[in-house]
Amino acid sequence: MVEIHRWRKRLHEIIFEADTRLGKSFDVVLIVCILASVAAVMLESVKGIREIYGDYLYAAEWFFTILFTIEYCLRLLCIGRPLRYAFSFYGLIDLIAVLPTYLDYLLPGARFMLVVRVLRVLRIFRILKLAKYINEAELLMKALRASRRKIAIFIYSVMIIVVIIGSFMHLIEGEDNGFTSIPRSIYWAVVTLTTVGYGDISPQTPLGQTVAMFIMILGYGMIAVPTGIVTAELTSVSPKKVSTQACLQCGAEGHDFDAVHCKFCGAKL
Amino acid sequence: MVEIHRWRKRLHEIIFEADTRLGKSFDVVLIVCILASVAAVMLESVKGIREIYGDYLYAAEWFFTILFTIEYCLRLLCIGRPLRYAFSFYGLIDLIAVLPTYLDYLLPGARFMLVVRVLRVLRIFRILKLAKYINEAELLMKALRASRRKIAIFIYSVMIIVVIIGSFMHLIEGEDNGFTSIPRSIYWAVVTLTTVGYGDISPQTPLGQTVAMFIMILGYGMIAVPTGIVTAELTSVSPKKVSTQACLQCGAEGHDFDAVHCKFCGAKL
Amino acid sequence: MVEIHRWRKRLHEIIFEADTRLGKSFDVVLIVCILASVAAVMLESVKGIREIYGDYLYAAEWFFTILFTIEYCLRLLCIGRPLRYAFSFYGLIDLIAVLPTYLDYLLPGARFMLVVRVLRVLRIFRILKLAKYINEAELLMKALRASRRKIAIFIYSVMIIVVIIGSFMHLIEGEDNGFTSIPRSIYWAVVTLTTVGYGDISPQTPLGQTVAMFIMILGYGMIAVPTGIVTAELTSVSPKKVSTQACLQCGAEGHDFDAVHCKFCGAKL
Amino acid sequence: MVEIHRWRKRLHEIIFEADTRLGKSFDVVLIVCILASVAAVMLESVKGIREIYGDYLYAAEWFFTILFTIEYCLRLLCIGRPLRYAFSFYGLIDLIAVLPTYLDYLLPGARFMLVVRVLRVLRIFRILKLAKYINEAELLMKALRASRRKIAIFIYSVMIIVVIIGSFMHLIEGEDNGFTSIPRSIYWAVVTLTTVGYGDISPQTPLGQTVAMFIMILGYGMIAVPTGIVTAELTSVSPKKVSTQACLQCGAEGHDFDAVHCKFCGAKL
Repeated sequence: MVEIHRWRKRLHEIIFEADTRLGKSFDVVLIVCILASVAAVMLESVKGIREIYGDYLYAAEWFFTILFTIEYCLRLLCIGRPLRYAFSFYGLIDLIAVLPTYLDYLLPGARFMLVVRVLRVLRIFRILKLAKYINEAELLMKALRASRRKIAIFIYSVMIIVVIIGSFMHLIEGEDNGFTSIPRSIYWAVVTLTTVGYGDISPQTPLGQTVAMFIMILGYGMIAVPTGIVTAELTSVSPKKVSTQACLQCGAEGHDFDAVHCKFCGAKL
Repeated sequence: MVEIHRWRKRLHEIIFEADTRLGKSFDVVLIVCILASVAAVMLESVKGIREIYGDYLYAAEWFFTILFTIEYCLRLLCIGRPLRYAFSFYGLIDLIAVLPTYLDYLLPGARFMLVVRVLRVLRIFRILKLAKYINEAELLMKALRASRRKIAIFIYSVMIIVVIIGSFMHLIEGEDNGFTSIPRSIYWAVVTLTTVGYGDISPQTPLGQTVAMFIMILGYGMIAVPTGIVTAELTSVSPKKVSTQACLQCGAEGHDFDAVHCKFCGAKL
Repeated sequence: MVEIHRWRKRLHEIIFEADTRLGKSFDVVLIVCILASVAAVMLESVKGIREIYGDYLYAAEWFFTILFTIEYCLRLLCIGRPLRYAFSFYGLIDLIAVLPTYLDYLLPGARFMLVVRVLRVLRIFRILKLAKYINEAELLMKALRASRRKIAIFIYSVMIIVVIIGSFMHLIEGEDNGFTSIPRSIYWAVVTLTTVGYGDISPQTPLGQTVAMFIMILGYGMIAVPTGIVTAELTSVSPKKVSTQACLQCGAEGHDFDAVHCKFCGAKL
Repeated sequence: MVEIHRWRKRLHEIIFEADTRLGKSFDVVLIVCILASVAAVMLESVKGIREIYGDYLYAAEWFFTILFTIEYCLRLLCIGRPLRYAFSFYGLIDLIAVLPTYLDYLLPGARFMLVVRVLRVLRIFRILKLAKYINEAELLMKALRASRRKIAIFIYSVMIIVVIIGSFMHLIEGEDNGFTSIPRSIYWAVVTLTTVGYGDISPQTPLGQTVAMFIMILGYGMIAVPTGIVTAELTSVSPKKVSTQACLQCGAEGHDFDAVHCKFCGAKL
């Protein structure tokens, strides 16, 4: 029993942690396998390659799937609270990363979703102890979270604009010029407002082109709004530029450049 | 008479307010109806769907129009100053949201403008008491209003640029390469400057392509101007993140939230 | 002689200034004429309209040209230093605005450049005493001027990138896929880097598409550079937010919020 | 021996420095030669021009290559530590600028890479003593370096998004609509997310167009992230515009340039 307990602890160290040499090696091998399996899925989708190497790629797919399935079971086995892991972010991704191969029998083509395995590579940050990257990513997430309401308002405005302009263009251009229905015209409005501009649908009548010019300039200028929102947040969440001076009495740091007294203990700086 | 007065007050509570259970339910039902009616208009514009379900969608259109007409009349009836409501922002939208169905007899196709009903959903903010969203929307509007003059100058510059470059390209490329007239060349200039790039008209001569490269790089760089304007405004309207606390002794303000002592005179805050 | 002098002074008031009722009327009429003449040039370039109303538009063109020529001569006549006006910004535009009609005999098509008349409308700012607009335009110009060196470096980098990637793509894709020459490949690189994306030339080989993806993501991210430059300048040229407090002793304003003493005379605030 | 030493020193002055009249002339001539040789390579790639002037351009190519080879040898000869130069940034570019002509026998087409010679023009900054440009370029580089981690996170996110959405679209649209393989669908996702939008591949099914709309709006909004990152850095690296003067009495810094008295203690500055 103690033996099993030690064995589980050992396994946990290897699989979940990256402090020991073995733990680090495991993670590196895992990432190589993930990238190889994603590459295999991509190559299999190319007709020319599938016709020649199809069998090998099919084998590789099953090999990696079985490997990841074993790994997933081991993870469940050696962790203290398996259910909590299973429903955590990484636990769900680990599960989704093996399901498509099995689902392919029920839903042909599902195996192409194996590329979600690429999400597992997010572990790379944890493994390589890329603390600085994690910090900066959190800073970014914080700024985006702080601006979520403004962005929601922006997206809502964009949606109202494309619905109204799309319907309007359906009236102006009509079915003969490619604006066959309101949903399709809305699709055109999104393509135009976001400055993508495929050109698969484009206005033909002078009035339609005038409206299109209006929506283009609108889209060209409107991009300033999300940019302004995110920039303003990023500027304000950036670590405040403070003096490197430490209080002689209480040792507190982070004083403003113009501070005369320590803001915590009141001693003269 | 008193009875009518009480009945009107009750109705006002339900229709215009969202504090009572009934008032809130009314607004939620209303929003569902609005979205359903917009969806019906969109689906009706799709040929394949219209041929099969056309009659049902036509009935739905009339059903919602009559419903909204009744609602509009009730609103006029139960409000203290009907005219003021009728000419308010929401009052006009409520009217415009029912007119197209009736106008369709005079102007075939007008019913597609029923999608403006989507604007009525703006009430959602009021109903759900999304105060924070309203605050942030007002902050955005304030920043945009503050930068309206700079944006007007920018749009005016864009217009002058596209008119001059458009005419110039009409000369260079000529009618054979799709630049059949100055207005059409201006349309091309807008498509290019805003980086939309449909590709329905594109320069063929080396000189035309050189001018096109110039306008592309111009458009690519010019987007910095509205972005800079809005960002600068958004940064300055953002509520400054300092404590409003003033020092009791020297009266200095602008202390950090974690400050215990005044940073200028050292007195306890 | 005195009579002529007074007459010149009067004319100057009308033509160059906008303080008197007559001076303002003159400027408003002038702007209407300018816009009408630009509209006439645009309409004349449309084949369908030219075939029907060609004669009228041709007459209008000459009418406006003669009108503007007379106006130009009067301007030269009534101003104190005619040469200085002739070589000033507005003087040159006034000249360029009449030349194309005459040049059209030597260089057919030159008359389409009459649209440069639209630049004359810039006077609108002066006429309508739009001081606030002028201030903000100057603020914008100041920010752009302050960032001209950084923008020059940016444009220089863009040019080096498109030349090298363009040549590289000419090698990879070859003449069969539309990349017929290095200049044309550079044109493609500009179209792609600036995210315009006409689609008249697009990579066909897997390697070419990979390089294209790289340049697209580069262009998508690089737009941050001019935007950042202009935004940083606009933020710093924005009128500094200063205290409205005035010094009791010397009356100086513009003190920082944290100032205790007047920075000019040293008196306590 | 001394003679040779003096001769080498003289040569070094001319080739590597730009302080003497001869040194400056050498650099100017060099830049003209570089631009001429790049122009020759570009023109040679144009079929129409090659057929007529091919021989001259071929001769020019060899002429410039031999010239630059001699120059490269002289540089190696007259510098103190030839190896260090050979492996420096400029040394490598100088080498790469001559190799392609020789390599063309082994790898036909390699000579088109002669355009990398354009990189040699970077010397222009050194020659013309454009100190301000170099300063600003360094400021830009500093800001970009400071934001390299955030940008890496951003690019990593973009890559994960395009891989997953690309695979998803391959499933939805299938081979008949141009999404023939996952790599090709990823190419489409990049084209769409970066708002380039060639239109060589575009979704045809309603579901595919809905997903495309989602990715377009995502790409339209996501551009705010790199922009925000670079802007925040550029704002913080910009030299703060305050005097470096410290108060003699209280030592406070951060005074405005026009300050006469310390704003904290009132002492004369």
